[in-house]
Amino acid sequence: MPDSPRNAAPLPAELPVTPADVLAAAEYLKGRAHRTPVLTSSLLDAELGCEVLLKAENLQRMGAFKVRGALWALAGLPAGDPVVAYSSGNHAQAVALAAREQGRRAVIVMPADAPRAKAEATRGYGAEVVAYDRRTESREEIAQRLADDLGAHVIPPFDHERIIAGQGTAALELLEDTAREGAPLDALFVPCGGGGLLAGTLLAVAALSPGTTVIGVEPAAGDDVGRSLAAGAPVTIDVPDTIADGAQTRRVGDLTFPILQALGARLESVPDAALVATMRMLAVRLKTVVEPTGCLGLAGLSAEAGRWRGRRVGVILSGGNVDLAAFARLVAG
Amino acid sequence: MPDSPRNAAPLPAELPVTPADVLAAAEYLKGRAHRTPVLTSSLLDAELGCEVLLKAENLQRMGAFKVRGALWALAGLPAGDPVVAYSSGNHAQAVALAAREQGRRAVIVMPADAPRAKAEATRGYGAEVVAYDRRTESREEIAQRLADDLGAHVIPPFDHERIIAGQGTAALELLEDTAREGAPLDALFVPCGGGGLLAGTLLAVAALSPGTTVIGVEPAAGDDVGRSLAAGAPVTIDVPDTIADGAQTRRVGDLTFPILQALGARLESVPDAALVATMRMLAVRLKTVVEPTGCLGLAGLSAEAGRWRGRRVGVILSGGNVDLAAFARLVAG
Repeated sequence: MPDSPRNAAPLPAELPVTPADVLAAAEYLKGRAHRTPVLTSSLLDAELGCEVLLKAENLQRMGAFKVRGALWALAGLPAGDPVVAYSSGNHAQAVALAAREQGRRAVIVMPADAPRAKAEATRGYGAEVVAYDRRTESREEIAQRLADDLGAHVIPPFDHERIIAGQGTAALELLEDTAREGAPLDALFVPCGGGGLLAGTLLAVAALSPGTTVIGVEPAAGDDVGRSLAAGAPVTIDVPDTIADGAQTRRVGDLTFPILQALGARLESVPDAALVATMRMLAVRLKTVVEPTGCLGLAGLSAEAGRWRGRRVGVILSGGNVDLAAFARLVAG
Repeated sequence: MPDSPRNAAPLPAELPVTPADVLAAAEYLKGRAHRTPVLTSSLLDAELGCEVLLKAENLQRMGAFKVRGALWALAGLPAGDPVVAYSSGNHAQAVALAAREQGRRAVIVMPADAPRAKAEATRGYGAEVVAYDRRTESREEIAQRLADDLGAHVIPPFDHERIIAGQGTAALELLEDTAREGAPLDALFVPCGGGGLLAGTLLAVAALSPGTTVIGVEPAAGDDVGRSLAAGAPVTIDVPDTIADGAQTRRVGDLTFPILQALGARLESVPDAALVATMRMLAVRLKTVVEPTGCLGLAGLSAEAGRWRGRRVGVILSGGNVDLAAFARLVAG
């Protein structure tokens, strides 16, 4: 093993979410979320010098893994209770979709200057959209006020027990579907924004494959999680300037951080140019459309491929919701 | 059923390829070709008013179903014998890949003015490329002369028993993977160039799901197969002007035609604009890159969706090998 199996240590007793929670979420999600395929390419393997197993969450319902956490989080609420979320991205659509399926009212708080397509997509899943002014108003306050008025639950994008457990089911499926006697995955690369997917992945790995090293990958401009782990406490940064719009978080979560710490997450960061190159490669070789944030994991592996020569490496392609004109512009570059 | 189950009639005894041949090819291809995933989208279903099951052969090895027929055809040759093929498209790369895997020399005859990327991709799979002048030379003659010189076998792109049987395995897998008690597929839409995939699909359907109506879809500018079936004999046309470069055949095959006739293929044609719209929709909704020819099946279903309201309909997305700059231009258009 290139890295010591740091995840093989016994789990700390005080974790806010446990491997058993991920298994419970997986049981619930059967038939409700897609069991997305694992994509492979012998040309990619030859290029990187290792066996690469790509979990295609861009082919997930509504185009991203976020629907896993949203479905599981909302399933924990009293029947019929409305929900409120603030997000201009995949979490908004995930909560909208989950709410519709569970017969709940959903209100999503979005910046007034968010791309019109995003608001439309969210409305398309049946949610109401409330606009706010990014410069003068706080989305958290608006969401909380709305929730108080409506008797609704605020569903945060990552810092929530069931969101974390739900996101972990993507890695769980990847580990199950690639299991081979005597050859566990040596590493697993995962995009990292607020750390929900990464924390869930660490828990899934603890459950099924404790020898697998988990690497979270951030945009270089927004490496707050790596810096927080190095500092031993959450670090807050300015909104990072990156095309990885799903990883523009300013601060790791209060629930995700102790999980990342306790389970020995390793962080790595990549520049936007690497995301564009990865997006292009995935379109050419794998025929698959992945949004910039979704390319973080594979870009991270590419950056340190030498380290994994001859190994079996999993990667989560977390989502595919990129505006087609932007995609065309980036890949045609 | 909107259509009478025309495939349910007993099979004519004299078919050049049989359902059993498709089953034999499928057995051989296990572990050699990808068992590609079946993609679905609830938004697409809602748009078309039926349950759509997309067999993603764009995710097949080397990016198209053609590798199925090539692997199976070459497996029928004496060990070590070299092969010759003429093609500027997916068949060239498929034969190159199959030859490399079986330790054979492969020579591919390509027009001198073919896109450089195509020749490079074919060389990338280990084949030698021989260029010819499209205006003054006959590729068939050059291929035959090369084959005579080398003691090689010419592998035609569609008019070959084992090519037809191999291509039929894509539909076979789709039928197996979507089987549901009491709810067979009502229809199956398949791109049609020379008729190899279509003939193989009809045989697979005859084996597993004789009540399923099979529809071959051609580009409107190159509807030679539909016209041939209407005329009762193969019709030759000029090279059709269409972006569906994998379906620019001038004449149906001598082996494929009687199979299409005997098994009651229905043909339909769509304009290039419908292929572009389908390509865009597949990128946005399904996050998947499909070449223009690969969009024929779904464009055909879209054109007659009203007819299949409430039904279960399969579609083969036959390949994803489109130049990325061209793809970006078409979908951004």
